[in-house]
Amino acid sequence: MNNFGKYFVEFIGTFFLVFTVGMVMLLPGNGVIPAIAIGFMLMVLVYAGGFVSGGHYNPAVSIAAALSGALEGNLLIPYILSQVFGAILASLLMMYFCDIPEVVTCAFSASNIFIGELLFTFALCYVVLATTAYEKIKGNSYYGLAIGSTVTVGTFAVGGVICYGAFNPAVAIGLFNMHISCMGLTMTTIFANLAGAVLAAYAYSYIKEES
Amino acid sequence: MNNFGKYFVEFIGTFFLVFTVGMVMLLPGNGVIPAIAIGFMLMVLVYAGGFVSGGHYNPAVSIAAALSGALEGNLLIPYILSQVFGAILASLLMMYFCDIPEVVTCAFSASNIFIGELLFTFALCYVVLATTAYEKIKGNSYYGLAIGSTVTVGTFAVGGVICYGAFNPAVAIGLFNMHISCMGLTMTTIFANLAGAVLAAYAYSYIKEES
Amino acid sequence: MNNFGKYFVEFIGTFFLVFTVGMVMLLPGNGVIPAIAIGFMLMVLVYAGGFVSGGHYNPAVSIAAALSGALEGNLLIPYILSQVFGAILASLLMMYFCDIPEVVTCAFSASNIFIGELLFTFALCYVVLATTAYEKIKGNSYYGLAIGSTVTVGTFAVGGVICYGAFNPAVAIGLFNMHISCMGLTMTTIFANLAGAVLAAYAYSYIKEES
Amino acid sequence: MNNFGKYFVEFIGTFFLVFTVGMVMLLPGNGVIPAIAIGFMLMVLVYAGGFVSGGHYNPAVSIAAALSGALEGNLLIPYILSQVFGAILASLLMMYFCDIPEVVTCAFSASNIFIGELLFTFALCYVVLATTAYEKIKGNSYYGLAIGSTVTVGTFAVGGVICYGAFNPAVAIGLFNMHISCMGLTMTTIFANLAGAVLAAYAYSYIKEES
Repeated sequence: MNNFGKYFVEFIGTFFLVFTVGMVMLLPGNGVIPAIAIGFMLMVLVYAGGFVSGGHYNPAVSIAAALSGALEGNLLIPYILSQVFGAILASLLMMYFCDIPEVVTCAFSASNIFIGELLFTFALCYVVLATTAYEKIKGNSYYGLAIGSTVTVGTFAVGGVICYGAFNPAVAIGLFNMHISCMGLTMTTIFANLAGAVLAAYAYSYIKEES
Repeated sequence: MNNFGKYFVEFIGTFFLVFTVGMVMLLPGNGVIPAIAIGFMLMVLVYAGGFVSGGHYNPAVSIAAALSGALEGNLLIPYILSQVFGAILASLLMMYFCDIPEVVTCAFSASNIFIGELLFTFALCYVVLATTAYEKIKGNSYYGLAIGSTVTVGTFAVGGVICYGAFNPAVAIGLFNMHISCMGLTMTTIFANLAGAVLAAYAYSYIKEES
Repeated sequence: MNNFGKYFVEFIGTFFLVFTVGMVMLLPGNGVIPAIAIGFMLMVLVYAGGFVSGGHYNPAVSIAAALSGALEGNLLIPYILSQVFGAILASLLMMYFCDIPEVVTCAFSASNIFIGELLFTFALCYVVLATTAYEKIKGNSYYGLAIGSTVTVGTFAVGGVICYGAFNPAVAIGLFNMHISCMGLTMTTIFANLAGAVLAAYAYSYIKEES
Repeated sequence: MNNFGKYFVEFIGTFFLVFTVGMVMLLPGNGVIPAIAIGFMLMVLVYAGGFVSGGHYNPAVSIAAALSGALEGNLLIPYILSQVFGAILASLLMMYFCDIPEVVTCAFSASNIFIGELLFTFALCYVVLATTAYEKIKGNSYYGLAIGSTVTVGTFAVGGVICYGAFNPAVAIGLFNMHISCMGLTMTTIFANLAGAVLAAYAYSYIKEES
């Protein structure tokens, strides 16, 4: 058994996630649509691929899973490459429908972006581990709903208000390729995502030991 | 045991799905309503009929299921006939409440329609197979939520933006009957739906073998 | 074992359902809120009481359940009385917060009301039976989501467009008490609800026999 | 085995819940966002922590659980302290992003606040007990959806209309710290929350005995 099926699932999922992010963020007068569409898309993809690859579609989640022992370490790099490749392809397709000549927004404060992205990437990785990695809740039917909804809530609470609401380095790269974000804030976003992932892995292991 | 119960379930479901599509697409200032109402209607019908007929309500899904061995081949034609009959009846009832004398929109580019409909019909069939056809996830409670939400997300991401957002030949026929779409774009939609279904069946079998 | 716990559950549930209906229908500029709030309220109450009383909160559902053997016949009358009592109490409390001196709307066509209420009361009872009464899906976790969402979709598709969107005689009585509907259309609504319930019980038994 | 893991889960959850409440209540033109974001946040946190701590994040729920035997009595005080500590920290962080110099609203009638908060805190505690405390529904996958959605519905039905829509003393304290509510109405809210919790514990034990 090789792992190409897992990589393919991560690639397809990140492609659809980032394509959806791009399309709904550029709708005029989009209101509640991005938060709901992006969270539901993630939920659907987690349910569709969770039992094959884990349904991460997010390098931060893969890192948290690897740190917690929920993902074999030697799969981490191919997972991240599949995710980034899917994100880049999605941003190219999205640009075919809607070419954005200049960067849409570069107006967030770097410290606000860092806090907002860290908080909800922490929440996302914490929820992923809490709903999929514990032995006694294996086979539950709610994990995709919980994971997708975390992104919906994060998008409502901090996305567009104090940060881009990526919570995912692959999405951050996609937004940069689509000219929705600029280089410096993209790097801040990615760094905050990774910090959130590491903290969530620690929180998970603390809770697991103490309960 | 005959299969009339299954055909009846497919007929009732496609009738309610297409009737709902027609009613909510013509509401003035409808905003988020069509995406949510149509996706939730599909979710409900999948849960109500899934364990009897599979809960397809969509010739593209029935074709993907037949190609993947999830539907017996000899049921494919009666399934499609039941679905199309339900769709036509729904469009007639809908026209009783709201008669549309001229075609609402015929302004999409055919290539955009093809890509948008192919992408999300692929996603829909991929999700149907991934949440219902694998042995190890039989009996899960999330399949209807995942399937219905795929249509919600597709409607937000590409429906009305680059295509009609049918993702379903029976819905495409219903929209044509209600004068919401025109002939050429309806044929393009149906062709894209079938292409998406075939690709999803291939993706499913590749992932199943490799994992 | 007596059945007062069941009646109490039906009373509490119908009280909260009708109170929510009244409060959200009178919000100014309410948009998507009534459909989502009412459907979610029903979903919550079905999950909270389903395993005690069945979680009907609706005389039409109780009748469909009694006709299908899912409810013991001698419980039908006390169920309906508990539901109607809850609905009346809710409408009185709601009038305390917001007294409506004249009837809000009496402008629907009786035939449209009949068709709209019949269609979605049929759908509601069909979904209730299909997600709770079959042996092989006992213990599923989706029944409340499917049942509540049917009302959400019905409210979007026909509620306020061609009918009140009650799909429930107890709700119809509550709307009449709150002066949201008038006497003639309330009677039409109730009659359509009962017709939908009977048809759904027949459809259920046909599908059950043929599959 | 000590219980620090449980306290930590209650602290993290109440922190994210109150932070989300603050952020979304102050968005301009927020419409449906608070009700959906807050309810979904609670749902996610209940799924993430339910099997560790019960996933209360709410002193009223902890009291109802203790009265019903679902929470050991000696955990009640540390639970409430963890929740209040999380709420205060969240309100401080939220004030960092958005400092509110004066109280936003102090215009509700105290009797309306009392009724609205009591009704839906009763509903919330009733739903928590009904979906988690009965033996025969252990292991269901819907409890988080039902619990979170109760808050969504309560926010739509009475929140902002006749009360703040806290349904939770920790949230009420957070709102007071953020200057969204004033002292007198905060005390009324908390008192109504506690009354609702006690009534729900009685309703639960009555239903449990009679059915």
